[in-house]
Amino acid sequence: MHLITFIEIVAILVGAFSGFIEARRKRMDVVGVFTVAFIAAFGGGTLRDILLDRRPLFWVTHQEYAILIFVLALVASPLIRTLRHRVSERMIVIADAVGLGLFSVAGVSSALEAHMPLFIASMMGVITGIFGGVLRDIVCNEVPMVFRDGKPYAICAFIGNWIFLLMGLYGVEHDFALWSSALFISGLRLICWKFDMTLGR
Amino acid sequence: MHLITFIEIVAILVGAFSGFIEARRKRMDVVGVFTVAFIAAFGGGTLRDILLDRRPLFWVTHQEYAILIFVLALVASPLIRTLRHRVSERMIVIADAVGLGLFSVAGVSSALEAHMPLFIASMMGVITGIFGGVLRDIVCNEVPMVFRDGKPYAICAFIGNWIFLLMGLYGVEHDFALWSSALFISGLRLICWKFDMTLGR
Amino acid sequence: MHLITFIEIVAILVGAFSGFIEARRKRMDVVGVFTVAFIAAFGGGTLRDILLDRRPLFWVTHQEYAILIFVLALVASPLIRTLRHRVSERMIVIADAVGLGLFSVAGVSSALEAHMPLFIASMMGVITGIFGGVLRDIVCNEVPMVFRDGKPYAICAFIGNWIFLLMGLYGVEHDFALWSSALFISGLRLICWKFDMTLGR
Repeated sequence: MHLITFIEIVAILVGAFSGFIEARRKRMDVVGVFTVAFIAAFGGGTLRDILLDRRPLFWVTHQEYAILIFVLALVASPLIRTLRHRVSERMIVIADAVGLGLFSVAGVSSALEAHMPLFIASMMGVITGIFGGVLRDIVCNEVPMVFRDGKPYAICAFIGNWIFLLMGLYGVEHDFALWSSALFISGLRLICWKFDMTLGR
Repeated sequence: MHLITFIEIVAILVGAFSGFIEARRKRMDVVGVFTVAFIAAFGGGTLRDILLDRRPLFWVTHQEYAILIFVLALVASPLIRTLRHRVSERMIVIADAVGLGLFSVAGVSSALEAHMPLFIASMMGVITGIFGGVLRDIVCNEVPMVFRDGKPYAICAFIGNWIFLLMGLYGVEHDFALWSSALFISGLRLICWKFDMTLGR
Repeated sequence: MHLITFIEIVAILVGAFSGFIEARRKRMDVVGVFTVAFIAAFGGGTLRDILLDRRPLFWVTHQEYAILIFVLALVASPLIRTLRHRVSERMIVIADAVGLGLFSVAGVSSALEAHMPLFIASMMGVITGIFGGVLRDIVCNEVPMVFRDGKPYAICAFIGNWIFLLMGLYGVEHDFALWSSALFISGLRLICWKFDMTLGR
């Protein structure tokens, strides 16, 4: 399996899970649960592809991922109630950090393939990393969490994306650059969370 | 007139009407009334076409429909006040059910023309059927009704879309499959509404 | 520098400023401030380009404008606090009126280049002029101001766009038509604001 593909699958499952939780919190029905999970999982990558005019979309060529979320949504409602007590906040934050790293770097990589200039590529990475959550929060009628909690999240992705871009410029091997940047983003995010860092306002 | 075209016109008028009502309820001005009606009417089909990368958009090639909604918005404000007392909730639900059936099946049909895989085509049909209302509710700063009321709505569209797809696979004549699936969706929706069915959460 | 380009730069800066203010009012952090400013500045033009299927997007070919907003967002947070006391509401309304005129006419011009029919072109101009603010308000979880305050805003753009289109039909020189229509829109908007006109509801 191609590396980027594997990266996106893991990130999608993590995204969908955040959608399940948020939709349940808003007391949505099964249609809402599926749609919000779908948007949380594919929203960032879809927005990136629309902005870059890349078609077919990731979830169109891989309908198996859409079906997977569909099946998960059907079984999620009872499951989530059980899981919520078992899944600690800590596990969610970790999974989410992993998703952020993977999604962001995959986004930069796609933007470079589409010959975007460097700054735009770094932004496309951040969009891929955070806009699933942003669109999820907009549909759930919330001010997006990532814009208001003052915790370094998008910024971790932004820094990591530049590390990836710089490694590319200096000729570092592509797969190594990809994995190490994703790891850097996830790690930085977790450190910021662990020590409860906040950005100045 | 081509069948699909006629289907979309009826569905657009029904969608615009739901936008007029929602925008008036939010005390919007004439610009808001037009925009929300436009989004409710064309939002689902436009999102589908952006996802499928189909251009020109339906309302671009048929500017007469955009003009029609424009004129309706200008005369709607005083009209809606009168109509609201005359138009019972029942009539709105019926018109909306007809719109859901027509939009959804037209959406599946478009997705098949664009060579989408079956599950994605069924989803594109649901998106075409419900996202006018979803985008309308987002602009009106509400959690989309279709995600939270627990009434079978998107699900009726989803089931009907699969009936349409299966009829296609078994070689049923296209126009017959189109009309009967649309009718099935509208009928199922009305039955669910009549007997006040709800989905389990 | 090409005329249209200059028009868009000024309009972008004005849009970004409205985003800074709105994001600060919602107590967003620096990521929110940048994103909302970016959406307010580029949202209208981006939506227009997605609807018209024009790529690359304006801010992709001109990454310097994205970088400019990025730098402004970094220095904006402390600046805004100071500026808010110095910048009167009057200055904001004037800058915004200038932006509305410039954006709208640039939008019509783009739509004509893409061979849109006249009514659609006039709408694309309005979308370019107002959807930065609409998307900004949606992300900030507000009913868009332009749809509810009953003040002529989108309508000024709509009328000015038709003046531009009619001047085109009657063979008026393009640059003159562009500037005079933009000026007309800004002036009409300011007159409506000055005399506190409202639309009937």
